[in-house]
Amino acid sequence: MKTQILAAAGSQKAELVLKHGWVVNVITEELEQADVAITAGMIVGLGDYAGETEVDVSGSFICPGFLDGHVHLESAMIAPAEFERAVLPHGTTGVMTDPHELANVAGTQGIEYILAETEALTLDVYVMLPSCVPATGLDESGAVLAAEQLKAFYEHERVLGLAELMNAYGTVQGDESILNKILDAEGAGKIINGHAPGLSGKQLNAYAAAGVGDDHECSGRKEALEKLRRGQWIMIREGTAAKNLEALISLCQAPYDQRCMFVTDDRHPGELIEMGHMDYIIRKAISLGADPIRAVKMATLNPARYFGLKKRGAVAPGYQADLVVLSNLEQVKVTQVYKNGRLAADKGEIPERKRQELTEAGKAQYPRIYQSFHLSEVTKEQLQLVPVGSQVRVLCLTPYELLTTERTIAWTEVPGYAPGVDVEQDVVKMAVLERHHDTGHIGIGFLGGYGLKAGAVAASVAHDSHNLIVAGVNDADMVLAANTVRRNQGGLAVVKEGIVLGELPLPIAGLMSWEPAEVVAEKLDELNALTRELGIPESVDPFMTLAFASLPVIPKLRLNTYGLIDTEKQEVVSVTYETGTKKK
Amino acid sequence: MKTQILAAAGSQKAELVLKHGWVVNVITEELEQADVAITAGMIVGLGDYAGETEVDVSGSFICPGFLDGHVHLESAMIAPAEFERAVLPHGTTGVMTDPHELANVAGTQGIEYILAETEALTLDVYVMLPSCVPATGLDESGAVLAAEQLKAFYEHERVLGLAELMNAYGTVQGDESILNKILDAEGAGKIINGHAPGLSGKQLNAYAAAGVGDDHECSGRKEALEKLRRGQWIMIREGTAAKNLEALISLCQAPYDQRCMFVTDDRHPGELIEMGHMDYIIRKAISLGADPIRAVKMATLNPARYFGLKKRGAVAPGYQADLVVLSNLEQVKVTQVYKNGRLAADKGEIPERKRQELTEAGKAQYPRIYQSFHLSEVTKEQLQLVPVGSQVRVLCLTPYELLTTERTIAWTEVPGYAPGVDVEQDVVKMAVLERHHDTGHIGIGFLGGYGLKAGAVAASVAHDSHNLIVAGVNDADMVLAANTVRRNQGGLAVVKEGIVLGELPLPIAGLMSWEPAEVVAEKLDELNALTRELGIPESVDPFMTLAFASLPVIPKLRLNTYGLIDTEKQEVVSVTYETGTKKK
Repeated sequence: MKTQILAAAGSQKAELVLKHGWVVNVITEELEQADVAITAGMIVGLGDYAGETEVDVSGSFICPGFLDGHVHLESAMIAPAEFERAVLPHGTTGVMTDPHELANVAGTQGIEYILAETEALTLDVYVMLPSCVPATGLDESGAVLAAEQLKAFYEHERVLGLAELMNAYGTVQGDESILNKILDAEGAGKIINGHAPGLSGKQLNAYAAAGVGDDHECSGRKEALEKLRRGQWIMIREGTAAKNLEALISLCQAPYDQRCMFVTDDRHPGELIEMGHMDYIIRKAISLGADPIRAVKMATLNPARYFGLKKRGAVAPGYQADLVVLSNLEQVKVTQVYKNGRLAADKGEIPERKRQELTEAGKAQYPRIYQSFHLSEVTKEQLQLVPVGSQVRVLCLTPYELLTTERTIAWTEVPGYAPGVDVEQDVVKMAVLERHHDTGHIGIGFLGGYGLKAGAVAASVAHDSHNLIVAGVNDADMVLAANTVRRNQGGLAVVKEGIVLGELPLPIAGLMSWEPAEVVAEKLDELNALTRELGIPESVDPFMTLAFASLPVIPKLRLNTYGLIDTEKQEVVSVTYETGTKKK
Repeated sequence: MKTQILAAAGSQKAELVLKHGWVVNVITEELEQADVAITAGMIVGLGDYAGETEVDVSGSFICPGFLDGHVHLESAMIAPAEFERAVLPHGTTGVMTDPHELANVAGTQGIEYILAETEALTLDVYVMLPSCVPATGLDESGAVLAAEQLKAFYEHERVLGLAELMNAYGTVQGDESILNKILDAEGAGKIINGHAPGLSGKQLNAYAAAGVGDDHECSGRKEALEKLRRGQWIMIREGTAAKNLEALISLCQAPYDQRCMFVTDDRHPGELIEMGHMDYIIRKAISLGADPIRAVKMATLNPARYFGLKKRGAVAPGYQADLVVLSNLEQVKVTQVYKNGRLAADKGEIPERKRQELTEAGKAQYPRIYQSFHLSEVTKEQLQLVPVGSQVRVLCLTPYELLTTERTIAWTEVPGYAPGVDVEQDVVKMAVLERHHDTGHIGIGFLGGYGLKAGAVAASVAHDSHNLIVAGVNDADMVLAANTVRRNQGGLAVVKEGIVLGELPLPIAGLMSWEPAEVVAEKLDELNALTRELGIPESVDPFMTLAFASLPVIPKLRLNTYGLIDTEKQEVVSVTYETGTKKK
């Protein structure tokens, strides 16, 4: 510290000085031409400084490192080290991740894994503790996390709080199991993240009174303003699936900008590589009319302040030397990234970086992550469905939306297809197999609007419990697809007529690959292309659609290991029934 | 908590509802007409609520409770309970106090005392740990506080950090004893308050790099902007002695308003009663052109956020029900004050409040507070000064300023006056007697510009060490004044021709009275009036001037127990000398 103070005072040389740049001062919202002096990982001074190392950044802009206040790393489908490699060159120096998917598969080991795997990273990875595992009682996850399983994690310095409290309904009803989690988080002085699309009025008051401090589900200005008025911070989300920035761009103005920040929530590997991460959101905000410095502030100072990170989010003495050098401010063109005062990325490349191998010893450390599949070989017999009537209740997709509808078709048996499948009517077979504890639980049903005309598609990424989901036109291909994923301890597979056309192993809990983001993105593209050949149209994301078809919290029908769920009634309903009988 | 949530949701009645008022929403900077529902001390909801108790506040404005981010309670010269009684009716529900004066007298017991005495108060009293006791090595205080004496206090939940780091020079030089205090505060995740008038450039960088988070000494916009740019929060001070609001009023605008707050620093009892506390500053800010809601924010949400008080500073669900009801927003007319959801003050009165008696048992608990005087009976012999030359170096006051100048007069002996005193030239005698450890240390010198023509004035409030200071025209009156203060275990006294004209005992460490603010204010007025009769002009505050005459950190000359100090040279200089000799 003494060295830093003396360097700041100019009594001795700073270790590193970025010379002649424009400092993006997110506090006073102005550009300042000043050298930035850095010693021992900290910004020590702005002004006219000499350094042991000097880097001329004339004409460039120096921003604080970007922070993503809410993300699920799992959505990038890559290991934490690869996530870092994907986002650091885009200027991201810290993220708050909710390992919700990992925890649904591996319980507390999912949290331990993410904390351990991110410990040595250059990127600051803060963890919010998954609050809703499983998401509902009507789902069969790999683990159940109660307050007592979470509590000890608050002692970890990188655990900043309780992650999105999706069970808003239970919270405002005063559900004790939720309140216990809240009380533990508050007792530890931590943040409680919200997730409550459309919550309003007294329900919102109750949710805020419970201590929920933010929301990232606002789809419009009116909703966001009501939540701001009630004390919540607004996370303006712009991810791969959900995009709210355009609707909320007017919040990038005083006084609202003081309590808003940008987040991604979920971002797929291809978009991370091609479009970027927080730099992309800032760029888009500017293109939508936001003041550039204020937009930078909403991805730096604001999340830092909200999460209580005192030494992050600004270019000022005493702050961590996490800096992003831009060649163009309005276009957010990142040239260099400094983390703790060291060059962490240069023109998109991370210098001197060795790729770590996934070893057997490494795998053995986390059995619930690397041996997450507990499922016997899948057989055709398991997939048999004996109709109890002539009518088939079909889970029907809605293009570009997560909502599903219910459709009824007549039971049909066409040679070459599984009984009940009617490709003419765009209805294929679907199964969800419990894969955490080999219980043999299986849900079988029919999927409409998926477009599949041949073969089968299988995946172990299936929200939120991540059981094995498979859709196909015949049982043999469905069995092959399912067993392919099973053999890989998780992943994606596309099969046609007894041949595996493509597969992507996701050995990390059945959710994430060990490969680099580029490789995973390319593989995903290949698999997507293969599904197009099987008939799935461009309007349907073949894997994301499947992944949400099992989540029993979104209307109207979902299929999980318990069977077909009417999410509005929150009960299991029969897949086939006789005309005139009670539709249950 | 469940009760609160259910009340918020409207499932059960709230305990208390303030009906039909205008909520001053400091987050969105707007007025909202809404009921405010309160249960178990917390605001649970805004909207349309029914309560077990309902209070109609139609036409009134509901603000968050006011917070004073930097104050020395000792300056009000009254016990903490009386301070509360003085400020609560003005809407103040929390203060961050630095018990710097108490600690200079009583060391850690001064801190323990303030924590204990404020524990049961309705007012939230947070404590910042005195960082500079004694203020300089050239002073003789009652205690020395090193890092190890302070550290344990950080465990107390109402201790928010390290108080104003006045030794800015030592800090930027990397003085280890200061750095240790900083490191302890940072290690405990606490705030470090600054105090660095005029600090700029690299010195400021070094001070900020050391972790000093704020400043309350800015006297102009330029200085404040530089400090804001370097990451410091600005405390806009408007106290009894120092007044900076007018010069800094332009900071009450975005984006600066986000990181500025109002503070009093020092406020005398008479002004607290007659003019108010934070309500006065808000009112003045509005009269100077500040937006009313933003002005309220700068005394509520901003200090709460800066000090990390998550549940304070706004009228929103989940926030502490600390509320101020105003009948007029622009004039900040406080009618009611609620603390933790209970009526704490109503039209200036605190309901059902018993005055606590100062008992012998209470005194015995804090010997260093209530028996802080360790000084043998003062005698005329002690005050003798034998001149070593014909010239007298006079500590000369500057009207309306704390700065002093050096003036030289010839040694003179006039019958009826102490040798050296020359009332014709407005020069009287002055002495500072060590009173903490009865060391017999005494500094004797001469004071110019004080106006005293007869008698003597004595006080035990003498910054920062609070030794016994006395000024007079003859030794007999000086001895009587000193012994009067001594007999009272501290206080103020005015004496003329062997008669004690007036006295104010300050039994709490020689700094504060046990009487109510009104009584103390009245007594002070009386004493001041008496000094006018002795010749002190209106341009001189008789006691404040004396209190600062011993502080050896402000230019140019000061007198303390070591003798006459040249503060620029930081050394003792002789009071008398012969013409032509080296002036030392």
